Amino acid sequence: MNYQPFSDKDLLFLKKLLGDDRVSTGASNLEIHSHDESFHSGYYPDVVVWPLTTEEVSTIVAYANQHLIPVTPWGVGTSLEGNPLCVYGGILVDFDRMDKIFAIRAEDFQVDVQAGVKYQDMNKILSRHGLFFAPDPGANATIGGMIGNNASGVRTVKYGGTRDNVAKLTVVLANGEVIRPGNLAQKSSSGYDLVHLIIGSEGTLGIVTEASLRLAGIPERFSAAVATFPTIRQATQAVYDIMGSGLGPAALELLDVSTVKVINTEANAGLEEDPTLFMEFTGTSDVALGEDVKLAETICKENGNTGFQSGVGREARNRLWENRHKAYEYIKRNNPGLDFMILDTAVPLSRYTEMVTFAVETIQKYGIKGYAFGHAGDGNLHLVLAGDFQDEDFCRKRDDANFEIVSQAISMGGTATGEHGIGIGKKKFMPMEHGKSLELMKQIKKMMDPNGILNPGKMVDPS
Amino acid sequence: MNYQPFSDKDLLFLKKLLGDDRVSTGASNLEIHSHDESFHSGYYPDVVVWPLTTEEVSTIVAYANQHLIPVTPWGVGTSLEGNPLCVYGGILVDFDRMDKIFAIRAEDFQVDVQAGVKYQDMNKILSRHGLFFAPDPGANATIGGMIGNNASGVRTVKYGGTRDNVAKLTVVLANGEVIRPGNLAQKSSSGYDLVHLIIGSEGTLGIVTEASLRLAGIPERFSAAVATFPTIRQATQAVYDIMGSGLGPAALELLDVSTVKVINTEANAGLEEDPTLFMEFTGTSDVALGEDVKLAETICKENGNTGFQSGVGREARNRLWENRHKAYEYIKRNNPGLDFMILDTAVPLSRYTEMVTFAVETIQKYGIKGYAFGHAGDGNLHLVLAGDFQDEDFCRKRDDANFEIVSQAISMGGTATGEHGIGIGKKKFMPMEHGKSLELMKQIKKMMDPNGILNPGKMVDPS
Repeated sequence: MNYQPFSDKDLLFLKKLLGDDRVSTGASNLEIHSHDESFHSGYYPDVVVWPLTTEEVSTIVAYANQHLIPVTPWGVGTSLEGNPLCVYGGILVDFDRMDKIFAIRAEDFQVDVQAGVKYQDMNKILSRHGLFFAPDPGANATIGGMIGNNASGVRTVKYGGTRDNVAKLTVVLANGEVIRPGNLAQKSSSGYDLVHLIIGSEGTLGIVTEASLRLAGIPERFSAAVATFPTIRQATQAVYDIMGSGLGPAALELLDVSTVKVINTEANAGLEEDPTLFMEFTGTSDVALGEDVKLAETICKENGNTGFQSGVGREARNRLWENRHKAYEYIKRNNPGLDFMILDTAVPLSRYTEMVTFAVETIQKYGIKGYAFGHAGDGNLHLVLAGDFQDEDFCRKRDDANFEIVSQAISMGGTATGEHGIGIGKKKFMPMEHGKSLELMKQIKKMMDPNGILNPGKMVDPS
Repeated sequence: MNYQPFSDKDLLFLKKLLGDDRVSTGASNLEIHSHDESFHSGYYPDVVVWPLTTEEVSTIVAYANQHLIPVTPWGVGTSLEGNPLCVYGGILVDFDRMDKIFAIRAEDFQVDVQAGVKYQDMNKILSRHGLFFAPDPGANATIGGMIGNNASGVRTVKYGGTRDNVAKLTVVLANGEVIRPGNLAQKSSSGYDLVHLIIGSEGTLGIVTEASLRLAGIPERFSAAVATFPTIRQATQAVYDIMGSGLGPAALELLDVSTVKVINTEANAGLEEDPTLFMEFTGTSDVALGEDVKLAETICKENGNTGFQSGVGREARNRLWENRHKAYEYIKRNNPGLDFMILDTAVPLSRYTEMVTFAVETIQKYGIKGYAFGHAGDGNLHLVLAGDFQDEDFCRKRDDANFEIVSQAISMGGTATGEHGIGIGKKKFMPMEHGKSLELMKQIKKMMDPNGILNPGKMVDPS
């Protein structure tokens, strides 16, 4: 692509459109936006802009398209694969100020928002209506970022991911045109599913500026439980049996010993230091809930479970999930001076035990310090590899281990990324995972973004 | 489009490929395939073929693309908008013999099938494993047809539609190339979502030949109930309150008095002849189930409910759902000599009462005999208009009523079709519903099928 260098004339245009205070070329602003929560870094935008409306985004994108300047949307930078980084410089569109909640339509279990709304902040407001947006990436991501990466998390085993909870979008296309695919009904068989085409496309086909989201009712009753096992294999086998039993857990998380130890150290959690499952059940009746937990315990016991703590109260339960959400943060804090790569494969449930075993053995083979945890209930495994990323020898081992583990997941019928997206880090696995479908993806990209200005360097290159 | 007339040479090619017994130009075969279950009829293919494999479909489509011959996939003809009819003649690909179940992967809650498998037949086999494919269109449709139209039904309120239950597809593209988008993991954030792009595209972007479907466990316990109300408005208000209460019914169906009467006459059902809700709850515990039903009854009573019959046994429950599924069939049988158009709008739940009222009042205004029923729990309304379709005056009224009702649904943030698809009948509503998104749909169609050979005359015309 023949991108044009960002010029003073371009800067003037943006300042005229947005005013001086919503356009910055300041070093610290460029620095802040040069990396996300992953180890990918050093990708500097030429300019950062803070639009307020879809119309402003449209004007920016239309201008960029005309002048061949890359445009990359940015939520809050909690992504884990370099998804919003300006590989080719250009304009970074920060959604920080597009954080309006237009309408809470509780009567339809829906909310209409701007893409810059942060989901934890939104869920706090929605809780007053007894509602919440269920996909739960842990970090306080923006809705736009979640849509871009099809984010999911601990609640996905019950409620689905972002993809399953979006009714309608407002999207700025590469030429600046605005479309509003989808509708507010619960279901539709009308037209091509542009909403799903955009979700997970990481801003490479269009920039999402507004969304209507489907909400769930906050469950009346819940019961959390912590189960420990002598081996990780027994823990994952219990996951498989729980999922096959007809129980519908609201969360089912795996943590290996290293991860549990870090949580104990960093959060003084007092967990038994064994391979562990965190789980939660929800319901409208205490009796039914109690039966669910009892069945889960029986299944755990059949798999050699040593400790089973259930009936955790609201406060302890919230701490449990906070600790789970902060696991990656704790791991980083616990290893000062080291760098981190976080893997994110997902496989069919029946292969999860095999996948976890393979992954752990692979990093042992390479002598890499690692932490394994993940959304076990939907076959999603995270593995944090820790080391010195200035050390070329280590990086070679890291990349080899990463390649072997991701390849293994794909060969099991799984995917290179369960929820973090392709970004910079997973692009090399696209041909292996998608085969001939990749060519069609490239054609779609070329058709929808012929000048390749939308978040270039991600997902696919135009054919 | 400059389609080429189907020639003897083309026939020879097909016979050489498939053998004489899997190619037919016989009048009765063309006649059988000239109409579906809707009033659209008289669209004759030039030839009907019965392939056995993806490779054969690929060869047929590649040939058709090269020779500019339309190709239209056909499941079993239970569609309700003329979806698989050959508007421009050409080759009709009947999936009747592509009915293999490749693998029941019970351990992953998935099944791999050819597109010609019929879903009721498949579910009978899956029931031995305690599993079922949840989207339930009523008719014994093929999986390919369900994917093409994004079919759904009485179970969708709990389990989602076809769109929500497909993991992976095999698709023959317009040039004959075969792609296999998707994967077998529970979730993924990798690449553009081609699976969802294909689902609901009615064979206009590619022909689905195989699929891996997500399955649900057959619930251990269920409880069906029948509730009657003095007015349809009270019944729909109860639907709205039930859905807002946190209850998660496995089915929640509305039937107006006319529909109930027909079911009584045709199936001797002995139902009270009032506006009626059929509902079902499922669970793992009798206690929890009982609580759910009690709460539903309380909500119904608050809305003026007159009769509430619950705890219906397995046999009576199966009869209940059979009667609901056969409602359209009964209506047709009960009105010999008349013709029928079935409407299929969906609106946000909060507008359902208003939508039903508007629809019923509209057909009254035009003096049209009608029957209203639908998947109330997800805001989906069916309305059967009965009359003499040879009578031009009636047809004008019918079309005016249809236009007003569908327009009203769209203006409420709803959709022209909840589950029947666009086909022939709903094409005229595409601009109203999709606005500027329609242009992108046309571009996608043109890119993926530049010669316009795939099910032409449906969904969108190439731009």
